[in-house]
Amino acid sequence: MKLKNPYQDKIIINALMRGGIVPDDVHNELPNWTKVGYIACFDCLQGRSSLCDKPPIKKFLQDVANFFGGDVCEHTFGCRGAQFAVMRTISNWVFENPKYTNTIIIDPNAHYTTNITAEMAGLKVVEVPHMGYPKYIYNPKDFEQKIKEVKEKEKRLPALVFVTHADPYYGNIAPVDEIGNICEEYEIPYAVNVAYTGGVAPIDMRRMKASFLTLSAHKSMASLGPLGYLVTNNQWSNKVFATSESKSGWTGKKFGNKIPNIFGCAIGGIPLISSILSFNYVKERTKKWEDELSKINKFVEDMEVLDGVMLLGEKPKRHHLLHFETERFFEISKTHPKKGFFLAEAMIEKGIVGLHRGMSKHIKFSIYGLSSEETTKVKEVFYEIAKI
Amino acid sequence: MKLKNPYQDKIIINALMRGGIVPDDVHNELPNWTKVGYIACFDCLQGRSSLCDKPPIKKFLQDVANFFGGDVCEHTFGCRGAQFAVMRTISNWVFENPKYTNTIIIDPNAHYTTNITAEMAGLKVVEVPHMGYPKYIYNPKDFEQKIKEVKEKEKRLPALVFVTHADPYYGNIAPVDEIGNICEEYEIPYAVNVAYTGGVAPIDMRRMKASFLTLSAHKSMASLGPLGYLVTNNQWSNKVFATSESKSGWTGKKFGNKIPNIFGCAIGGIPLISSILSFNYVKERTKKWEDELSKINKFVEDMEVLDGVMLLGEKPKRHHLLHFETERFFEISKTHPKKGFFLAEAMIEKGIVGLHRGMSKHIKFSIYGLSSEETTKVKEVFYEIAKI
Repeated sequence: MKLKNPYQDKIIINALMRGGIVPDDVHNELPNWTKVGYIACFDCLQGRSSLCDKPPIKKFLQDVANFFGGDVCEHTFGCRGAQFAVMRTISNWVFENPKYTNTIIIDPNAHYTTNITAEMAGLKVVEVPHMGYPKYIYNPKDFEQKIKEVKEKEKRLPALVFVTHADPYYGNIAPVDEIGNICEEYEIPYAVNVAYTGGVAPIDMRRMKASFLTLSAHKSMASLGPLGYLVTNNQWSNKVFATSESKSGWTGKKFGNKIPNIFGCAIGGIPLISSILSFNYVKERTKKWEDELSKINKFVEDMEVLDGVMLLGEKPKRHHLLHFETERFFEISKTHPKKGFFLAEAMIEKGIVGLHRGMSKHIKFSIYGLSSEETTKVKEVFYEIAKI
Repeated sequence: MKLKNPYQDKIIINALMRGGIVPDDVHNELPNWTKVGYIACFDCLQGRSSLCDKPPIKKFLQDVANFFGGDVCEHTFGCRGAQFAVMRTISNWVFENPKYTNTIIIDPNAHYTTNITAEMAGLKVVEVPHMGYPKYIYNPKDFEQKIKEVKEKEKRLPALVFVTHADPYYGNIAPVDEIGNICEEYEIPYAVNVAYTGGVAPIDMRRMKASFLTLSAHKSMASLGPLGYLVTNNQWSNKVFATSESKSGWTGKKFGNKIPNIFGCAIGGIPLISSILSFNYVKERTKKWEDELSKINKFVEDMEVLDGVMLLGEKPKRHHLLHFETERFFEISKTHPKKGFFLAEAMIEKGIVGLHRGMSKHIKFSIYGLSSEETTKVKEVFYEIAKI
């Protein structure tokens, strides 16, 4: 099958993608690592990529753990793989801890993978409510309320609180420190999904009092996908990264280096190599997060100059994902021959890709990492289209 | 972190890697697809990569299903992801089918991921015995025997028979058709792991009477990793690829397009793109499988000319993975300053990479896809080292 990437020279504004753009020098290196599937496995001696010294995957994973304030890190099949490992760990842990029930509490703006991985692990999900339109924020105290409700109803504590640091709908930043204090007080394990922040914003899981941090390399760590990381502390690492206990009956084979929660070994492919190559760049860019936020908030002001355009979610922005209500574009779509598709297509014609095709009443995108010229161009194209 | 791929110009003979080498024209295309993590997701309208029409992932997956004799295919996080989906499906299915117990029967030469994914899904594993040194083959009738034993002991039928088509230890080809007939007779679901054959040898799951085929794109489909496929038939597809049934309490969010067994969506990254680009090449090369086997069997003869070198596993070879007992090299290692490491290092010095470092008494490798010049070179280097 012949394929062409039609967007190669476009400015990308897809909010999923901005943090996953590979820096040029890394991109130029990649052809040296794309001739074979198992590219990181030539010198694997112990049968698990995370134990490899050549390339120094073991050392790299320790660097990742340190950078995010944790003790131990394994790479995973995307952030969803990391979340699954947490959910499965908690699901097993509940069996040994009658103080807890297999209900977990999540925030109302969680990514769907939090629900799906809980479903996979057989955990029940209780959501904290948000305050609705237009900010969709919630009060950290509501986590305490839900903990009490679960305790009251099930006579046991919820087994986990799982919070989305920056959510995928509005780019709100969750009150993770306050929730961490509540979890500490009630002795409830605490996981924070930093898929949208880890690798763009400064993150310290110790300050959050989190036991688990789930990361997406292709979302926010300038890496190819699928790749995620799970960072944890020494207290939990022997549970979540427990090695296999099974023994194959007749042959007696054991798998002592393999970690079931990450499928034994999470495979040393090109995503992992790209992430190793990008990691210094990622560390450096998180230092410039405040500058990015200034640029982003200025951009929001500029967008809201347009009639019928309003930011949803908290203001000022503390994250790069932007969600606007765009009545102006919706009005145009009603009479445009391409209907709601006109907007994404008009943007592409102007060299900007990343709006969800078909959407015009609400749009989500990001200008994270764009130069001031590119940012100006995005703004001007929106202005131009608004005049249609 | 700076990294260099030290093996870029070497002849690769790692048996894991030979089937995962990306053809040159695809390799040359890859830089167009490696600037951003979620490269296949620009035009995702339905929130699952396998439903995408642009790039035509949906159509491609149907092509993959057809090529292997199945009805439906989803891409997964490696073959282990595909195996996990099967195991999880069976684990849930047993609850609704009191005729079956949560014990599965596997072959004695299974890849470790079969054990690990069974462990993940809470399935017990019973192994069929092999006949030991030097061929390690087994009798398909032994599957029938084990089915009867499980039935006798647990008063129920085993829930699954899971067979490794070409095994990772000896490269023996399993008697999959005969086992398929037994499974049909006893009405036991049947999965075949073709990680080492699907994409190099002709495969037809209907002829095997298999309900599930698990594939590794980075092992045998000339693709970057991590990527696998699960192919199934219409009978099982609505179970193994069932969409999410969960509903998030307060917000009422549902995830109707997401498939929990593959983590919702298995993510459209560069491995998937590489596999789409390579697929025609893969289809064509499977037609030349008999030529490859002739070359391989000639090579085995040439190797066995060396004193103290003997093929393990079945003979003649019906697969490309070669496992030799190499007393000659072991003898050398005893007095060599590099001990057992001398062999892999001597090979690398001669431009050939892929032997497991430290091993000299037994070696595993493959010459699949090597030109006759390269094949001759590999042979001559072994001859040369044997003379040390």
